[in-house]
Amino acid sequence: MSAFGTLYGLGVGPGDPELMTVKAARILQSVPVVAFFAKEGELGHARRVAGHYLNSEQQELRFNYPYTVEISKRSEAYRTAMDSFYDEASDGIAAVLDDGHDVALLCEGDPLFYGSFMYPYDRLSGRYPTEVIPGVTAMTACWNRSGVPMTRGDDCLTVIPGTLEEGELLRWLQSSDAAVFMKVGRHLPKIRRALEAAGLLERAIYVERGSMDDETIVRLSEKPDDDAPYFSIVLVPTERSTS
Amino acid sequence: MSAFGTLYGLGVGPGDPELMTVKAARILQSVPVVAFFAKEGELGHARRVAGHYLNSEQQELRFNYPYTVEISKRSEAYRTAMDSFYDEASDGIAAVLDDGHDVALLCEGDPLFYGSFMYPYDRLSGRYPTEVIPGVTAMTACWNRSGVPMTRGDDCLTVIPGTLEEGELLRWLQSSDAAVFMKVGRHLPKIRRALEAAGLLERAIYVERGSMDDETIVRLSEKPDDDAPYFSIVLVPTERSTS
Repeated sequence: MSAFGTLYGLGVGPGDPELMTVKAARILQSVPVVAFFAKEGELGHARRVAGHYLNSEQQELRFNYPYTVEISKRSEAYRTAMDSFYDEASDGIAAVLDDGHDVALLCEGDPLFYGSFMYPYDRLSGRYPTEVIPGVTAMTACWNRSGVPMTRGDDCLTVIPGTLEEGELLRWLQSSDAAVFMKVGRHLPKIRRALEAAGLLERAIYVERGSMDDETIVRLSEKPDDDAPYFSIVLVPTERSTS
Repeated sequence: MSAFGTLYGLGVGPGDPELMTVKAARILQSVPVVAFFAKEGELGHARRVAGHYLNSEQQELRFNYPYTVEISKRSEAYRTAMDSFYDEASDGIAAVLDDGHDVALLCEGDPLFYGSFMYPYDRLSGRYPTEVIPGVTAMTACWNRSGVPMTRGDDCLTVIPGTLEEGELLRWLQSSDAAVFMKVGRHLPKIRRALEAAGLLERAIYVERGSMDDETIVRLSEKPDDDAPYFSIVLVPTERSTS
């Protein structure tokens, strides 16, 4: 009976393939099987980034998300469908691990920071050897590409999902020295209002596809529309950065 | 007249040399001059990590910190000495850039996240071509090495310097879904008391030298003493991680 394969949770970083870690690139080039999640009909960020390191000998295990933004993430239908999705994906990965082959499950940014890797990890890490390889997070790449010192000295940083209610966003802004809004997408008008109410709109920077070839970086106050993809980010760097 | 050299703010990542990005490793191997800050008599984390990629042809520019933990960071003497230190280091780097040579200034973790790189960056980025290369932050490596999902779904994460007052620490803990304490060191007893008051001590994980060969990872409630180096970290992962 062969030993189980190892499950790697592999952070591919923010988008530029060169911003993957040396370790992630090494493992990516050596595993026999690469697994990833993607929206139907799209290659997906994680697989696109990983593509720079893969060869034609490697097997790919693709799992299509049942939903991405089509229905509310708080609906029962969404939760049920996603639970089944992660169950099935985990079973598919487990079958390969049972055969003794290592699997790298690709994750945008870092696997344990808002990543969907965590759901198969919950299901599989107790049963198989597992190693999680950290990645540069999208927010880290965004503030580096923007060239703004994000936090200094005794600053507190808060990372806030744009999905929260407007009053919550404002409350967080009022107590933080620096802030990052994740999951911006259709929540941008609400985020903009909260920033205005906190008197912070002029400090806010909008970043879309940070570190990728077609990135956009603009002061939010100068962005004329509220069109934003789900994975866009708004940065509010520390005030000390302007001193 | 030759063109100016480029200043690279180079994030070397959390400690394991393989957790440097592919881009940082490439630039590190190609620049003629590598600059770094260190405590007198020590090589320093950043230079130790970078050493795995350097060769004997490269010139090193070392600058010794006048203080690290000897006097209060809030004292006038500390500020004056550090201002002069960053002025002199920036002048030293500028002299190399003026001669047309590129310089990589090494930074632990990520250059723009609580990094001392920001002070020369303030002084030099307007005068020379500058590129900042992001790195995996220490906190990211710590939660990956601990194997704990840090944030999920709509969680808010706060990053809190342990240097703040106890009441402030408690206030942050009470409003956050997940938290990271940075700059722990001699502030550990205070952090422990705040966690106890918030009923969160059992969720807290203490990480020392995360991703390095001699790392320590332990539940804070099981750590018998309060000895901690300045760069140790305490993680309070989201409650959802245990579901």
